[in-house]
Amino acid sequence: MKEDTIAAVATPPGFGAISIIRVSGPDTFRVADLIFEGKRKISESESHTIHYGRLVNTLGNTMDDVLISVFRAPNSYTGEDSVEINIHGSPFIAKVVLEELIRFGLKLAEPGEFTKRAFINGRLDLSQAEAVADVIRSSTDASLRGARNQLDGLLSQKVSELRALLINLSSFVELELDFSEEDIKFMGKEKLNAGIDEIIKEIDALLSTYSFGRIIRDGINVVIVGQPNVGKSSLLNYILKESRAIVSHIPGTTRDIIREEVSMDGILIKLYDTAGIRFSEDEIEKEGVTRSREAVKNADIVVFLGDVDRGFSEEIFKEISDLSISGKIFKVMNKADLDVNSAFNAEIKISAKTGLGIKELLKKIKDSALSSSSFSEKTAIISTLRHYNCLEEARKNLLNAKDSISQEMSGEFISVDLRSAEQSLAEIIGVVTSDDILNNVFSKFCIGK
Amino acid sequence: MKEDTIAAVATPPGFGAISIIRVSGPDTFRVADLIFEGKRKISESESHTIHYGRLVNTLGNTMDDVLISVFRAPNSYTGEDSVEINIHGSPFIAKVVLEELIRFGLKLAEPGEFTKRAFINGRLDLSQAEAVADVIRSSTDASLRGARNQLDGLLSQKVSELRALLINLSSFVELELDFSEEDIKFMGKEKLNAGIDEIIKEIDALLSTYSFGRIIRDGINVVIVGQPNVGKSSLLNYILKESRAIVSHIPGTTRDIIREEVSMDGILIKLYDTAGIRFSEDEIEKEGVTRSREAVKNADIVVFLGDVDRGFSEEIFKEISDLSISGKIFKVMNKADLDVNSAFNAEIKISAKTGLGIKELLKKIKDSALSSSSFSEKTAIISTLRHYNCLEEARKNLLNAKDSISQEMSGEFISVDLRSAEQSLAEIIGVVTSDDILNNVFSKFCIGK
Repeated sequence: MKEDTIAAVATPPGFGAISIIRVSGPDTFRVADLIFEGKRKISESESHTIHYGRLVNTLGNTMDDVLISVFRAPNSYTGEDSVEINIHGSPFIAKVVLEELIRFGLKLAEPGEFTKRAFINGRLDLSQAEAVADVIRSSTDASLRGARNQLDGLLSQKVSELRALLINLSSFVELELDFSEEDIKFMGKEKLNAGIDEIIKEIDALLSTYSFGRIIRDGINVVIVGQPNVGKSSLLNYILKESRAIVSHIPGTTRDIIREEVSMDGILIKLYDTAGIRFSEDEIEKEGVTRSREAVKNADIVVFLGDVDRGFSEEIFKEISDLSISGKIFKVMNKADLDVNSAFNAEIKISAKTGLGIKELLKKIKDSALSSSSFSEKTAIISTLRHYNCLEEARKNLLNAKDSISQEMSGEFISVDLRSAEQSLAEIIGVVTSDDILNNVFSKFCIGK
Repeated sequence: MKEDTIAAVATPPGFGAISIIRVSGPDTFRVADLIFEGKRKISESESHTIHYGRLVNTLGNTMDDVLISVFRAPNSYTGEDSVEINIHGSPFIAKVVLEELIRFGLKLAEPGEFTKRAFINGRLDLSQAEAVADVIRSSTDASLRGARNQLDGLLSQKVSELRALLINLSSFVELELDFSEEDIKFMGKEKLNAGIDEIIKEIDALLSTYSFGRIIRDGINVVIVGQPNVGKSSLLNYILKESRAIVSHIPGTTRDIIREEVSMDGILIKLYDTAGIRFSEDEIEKEGVTRSREAVKNADIVVFLGDVDRGFSEEIFKEISDLSISGKIFKVMNKADLDVNSAFNAEIKISAKTGLGIKELLKKIKDSALSSSSFSEKTAIISTLRHYNCLEEARKNLLNAKDSISQEMSGEFISVDLRSAEQSLAEIIGVVTSDDILNNVFSKFCIGK
């Protein structure tokens, strides 16, 4: 079946100097010829050239004067024949032009459909395609570098290496099966075990990058907890005011949780203020408490705020200790600019009024979240749960294989385990993949990408 | 002095598949070479070609993988050396790249600075430059066609023709002055008068297009006035609900005036509801009333809404008649679905409940606003006050010239008047122009255009 030819606005919505309408598919040049009047036909133009002219509708009216960029298959983003039409940055003109293109049989592109075609046509693998969305939504140096690391194929390369090793091991095992009558051994048990261990070691190394990868991709979730009037909002406000790197202010959809984002040394720190939610108190609002408990549970770091007057509530501390998965709770004493009752035991003393200690607090948050991990531009890292799960699955299958070997089971069992591990790795880069996975990956994209 | 090289994001702000950073000026290619790594240097690339590669910062880190379009002077929008860098549609990446460009000495472009350079370099005249902004903000077929008409130079051409005629007349008058000793006549008084009349006639024709041009550019201002509970808001709501061509909903900044926009046959109709403002009543809010009176004053059409129960308040009718400049007041009787007391005199009967007569009302509004004027794609039209004023000024000077002729005044006086008229025409297309005019025109642009 012939592929559809798709079109969409590829630039952000709204008014600007220029908007781009991207078109890709087998009918691209034929339809471009129908609406474009320039010195030369688009269908007769070379790839990677730009042409000035007019888009004219069927009534002969000029829709816009445009620049059209021509990309011939396979040398385009999608790998198909494509054009990018630079129109004036008007939503109305974009609508008029898209309507005209649809009149000539083009389809409006789904979110991510251009990148999906790029994947299908082998222009990038699945982990790289996923990285495209991450590159676009990156908002700090670290997140951009992390996404680029993946887009540049460091993960793909590492995964491909491991797959090759696995395929090699499997081949030997399967070869032995073929010659099982003759009882020929192509590879000793020890050598096979060692080969599997080597791959497990590499997978463990990749898995260990996940918390780091996730943090540079998504930022550090910091939840501020404390009794009323202990200064939670003041702390948040001070950080926002002082930070010259405010990334965004996201007003809470409910008054229960307020989220702010700042960037520190290129790392995104997401601050959640559970203001209004009184842990361990009677008068609680169900929805808000559920949300706050959820936030504490998933926090990378909980900032437990007390003040010099009241110290820290043991009750609240116990509650958040029980909830927190990371277990990283910082006892932070506010109002340290006042006379300090040093009887209270606080790791960090701050003043949301004078700013005392706040920079140190942020640094401690960052260092603690990143632990000892360091980011090398040359190391493959993983940052998405999908990749983590695939690696975990591969690891499990490899351990099964080792079990089978130690139990002297038939080579068939070993072979199945090794093949399963290999398939799990293949899923990361999309060598094998289901429609569900693809839809899930590409639905997260914006239209036009 | 060497021109600055300028840079700006040319696409709408926000996230998308692609954003464009536009760069223009003498340093464009030198700086592009410094940050771009591709198969070939930008400085060695031909005009109108596209190059895939990476933007790399001074630390050697990849900022993004991009497509760069190369435009060599004078074959670019600005007439200067330019590139358009297609980056991923991320505000963060745009910021990173712009910062890097600024580090190499580029300047952030002012609003409209690219188009201003296009004007200065003779790529388009001033009226065409003004039309660029109109094209971008066009939101209906008619406004787009009107803006295109001007961008395509129909006004420029007509104005240039008139200027040429004027310069010709002036030359004869001035020639006579040079030979005044000899009392030679190069052109008879009648012929001179006839020539001036011809030009005045053309100017009048242009002036007469203004109300039409303004309406297709800005839409028809319709103000709905009536006593409380007569159904003003219901009428507005019905129109919005039925109209499949709602352009936008602009919530009032105050509760005094509500504005909605619909499009009918490609013409924008702006509906202002003066709800809450009781004309001719005691209990009034100063600010709101001032605003409503202003709206009625400037309305192209006032819809004076009455209902079958109460008819029309004579008092209010008198007040709006006194205010309205256009004098176009439609007496519209609402609730005509109820038993009609036909004693009331209404031009139009509607029901905001059943929709009765509303389509006819809108059609009448449109026809009345456009009067008998018809829009030909081939006729020059004017749509901005600046052009209107320039033409009025030219007309005044030409009438002065005719006065001088009839009073048998010296040719010097006639010459001055003709030259002034010619200058006024020149201002429209920017042949002569002041910094004030330029700044005023280009400050209305978006950044990146």
